[in-house]
Amino acid sequence: MYYIGVDVGGTGMKAGVTDSSGNIIKKAECKTYVELGHKRIIDDMAKLILHTVHLANLKISDIKAIGIGIPGVADLNGTIYYATNLKWSNVPLGDLLKEYFEGINIYVQNDATVAALAELHTGSMRGVKSGIMLTLGTGVGGGIIIDEKVFSGAHGIGSEMGHIIIGENFYDCNCGNNGCLETFCSATAIIKYAQKLISEGRKTSVTARANENAENITAKMVFDSYLEQDEMSIEVIDRFVKYLGIGIASLVNAFDPEIFCLGGGVARAYDIFKDDLKKQTDKRVIFKNIAYGNIVPAQLGNDAGVVGAAMLGL
Amino acid sequence: MYYIGVDVGGTGMKAGVTDSSGNIIKKAECKTYVELGHKRIIDDMAKLILHTVHLANLKISDIKAIGIGIPGVADLNGTIYYATNLKWSNVPLGDLLKEYFEGINIYVQNDATVAALAELHTGSMRGVKSGIMLTLGTGVGGGIIIDEKVFSGAHGIGSEMGHIIIGENFYDCNCGNNGCLETFCSATAIIKYAQKLISEGRKTSVTARANENAENITAKMVFDSYLEQDEMSIEVIDRFVKYLGIGIASLVNAFDPEIFCLGGGVARAYDIFKDDLKKQTDKRVIFKNIAYGNIVPAQLGNDAGVVGAAMLGL
Repeated sequence: MYYIGVDVGGTGMKAGVTDSSGNIIKKAECKTYVELGHKRIIDDMAKLILHTVHLANLKISDIKAIGIGIPGVADLNGTIYYATNLKWSNVPLGDLLKEYFEGINIYVQNDATVAALAELHTGSMRGVKSGIMLTLGTGVGGGIIIDEKVFSGAHGIGSEMGHIIIGENFYDCNCGNNGCLETFCSATAIIKYAQKLISEGRKTSVTARANENAENITAKMVFDSYLEQDEMSIEVIDRFVKYLGIGIASLVNAFDPEIFCLGGGVARAYDIFKDDLKKQTDKRVIFKNIAYGNIVPAQLGNDAGVVGAAMLGL
Repeated sequence: MYYIGVDVGGTGMKAGVTDSSGNIIKKAECKTYVELGHKRIIDDMAKLILHTVHLANLKISDIKAIGIGIPGVADLNGTIYYATNLKWSNVPLGDLLKEYFEGINIYVQNDATVAALAELHTGSMRGVKSGIMLTLGTGVGGGIIIDEKVFSGAHGIGSEMGHIIIGENFYDCNCGNNGCLETFCSATAIIKYAQKLISEGRKTSVTARANENAENITAKMVFDSYLEQDEMSIEVIDRFVKYLGIGIASLVNAFDPEIFCLGGGVARAYDIFKDDLKKQTDKRVIFKNIAYGNIVPAQLGNDAGVVGAAMLGL
């Protein structure tokens, strides 16, 4: 049997047909017309799926299940509570898509959870029974694997590790709270703290990289300056690593997964911060002499969303 | 078949024979001679178990399993990593007890986890599939139920929710970290914050309750003064409730259990703080319009340890 995975983003959608091991047979993509509303997007999604099946020389009856990764939160029936980038709230995606694909099981999950599933089946979490994925990007997303399956809680709203509160911060999170992991450990967090220090008069080579305009700063610029021993960048990255260690240690103490997998843009700098991260985490787990889960980088790139979504159907 | 549950504490041990529904048939107790070392304690434990079986008019062959709740952390084979109050580290309790009870399965778990299991089978978590128990006592212990079973992580060191880091505090936790939930939400945390404010010159009726000696302060005194509108006590309890809300909201965002169950001495004041706790938690869960797990008080009293330990064998 074959599986369909769809990775829905705010600017484009990708769909792929995979086998049961997560190998992509064929894939295709199209734009996401957010401004045209959810019905049009779901119609485009259905056409994209059919197109992909056609490309793979298959019939729709060869498809065992359709899995969809969305930038938001869905309940267990595939209704999207919120998907900010899609401007969706309470969209019954599962039910609406069923009208196109009667008799085929449809599964909908948060994109970070889908990324975790992809890493579980074909990436750096292969062979584990339990794991936590943190996607360190514009925000911080999370996925939890327990007993080799996706775990998203009793109401489907769990695994939002970006919003565990781990300290006090100088700015509030988009969610309205102060102190969320996301406000310390996302690319945005790195940028905002660099901007704060610069606005307080700190000299840094990041300013030149950003063409003297703090609005242009990216997390990568801060890492690049860090590698050149730029003092301010060291302070910014040390703070990021400290709080990521606090977050991971809290998750060790509460969940104790077999592995932690770091994905998203910031994790591309994994080799730069991995040793410090281990030290910061070691310091904070309660049982210092007991092994806890390894912290590893994600292995999969752009196809993780499609592969993980397809694996929802397994 | 029948089950044995043993509740091991630093001053005494209780053992009970239960049926498969967690009803206690007979129970007995004895002292814990911590100073005589683990071999003597385990020998006393074996005798206590045999005595309980005898009291229940049963033979040892009628016993399906022995479960033991300990004030510490055990691995999946029943070896105790640490149990501070027993002065144990790396004690192979499971193996040593097996020498007395060959052929009977022996299960060892942390006492807060055991309390969670008791609430699941015979208390306020009956009928749920997933739940988190927080025991608010001298410290803060935790138990996690997933799929109606105890969840303690890949290495047996999870469910220590007292040691998720949720802020910055004026004193460090026993575990060496700053900002653990336990340092905001235990009886000790309430006492220490009251003592701090008093040492800063705050007037409060707690001082009179404690016979003018801050060393005598208990959490109950602070709750009693809170009920009389004592200003300092209101500040102390409000802070306790705020951080308990932060901790529970973080656990909603990450785990999303079906229910939260509060046990331990501080939870006896549940009716006093429940409305404020709901408000503090509501404010901090990310998805404000989606139901999350109810927060309820534990129902079981002193027998929870015996019942929950027995239920480990189910």
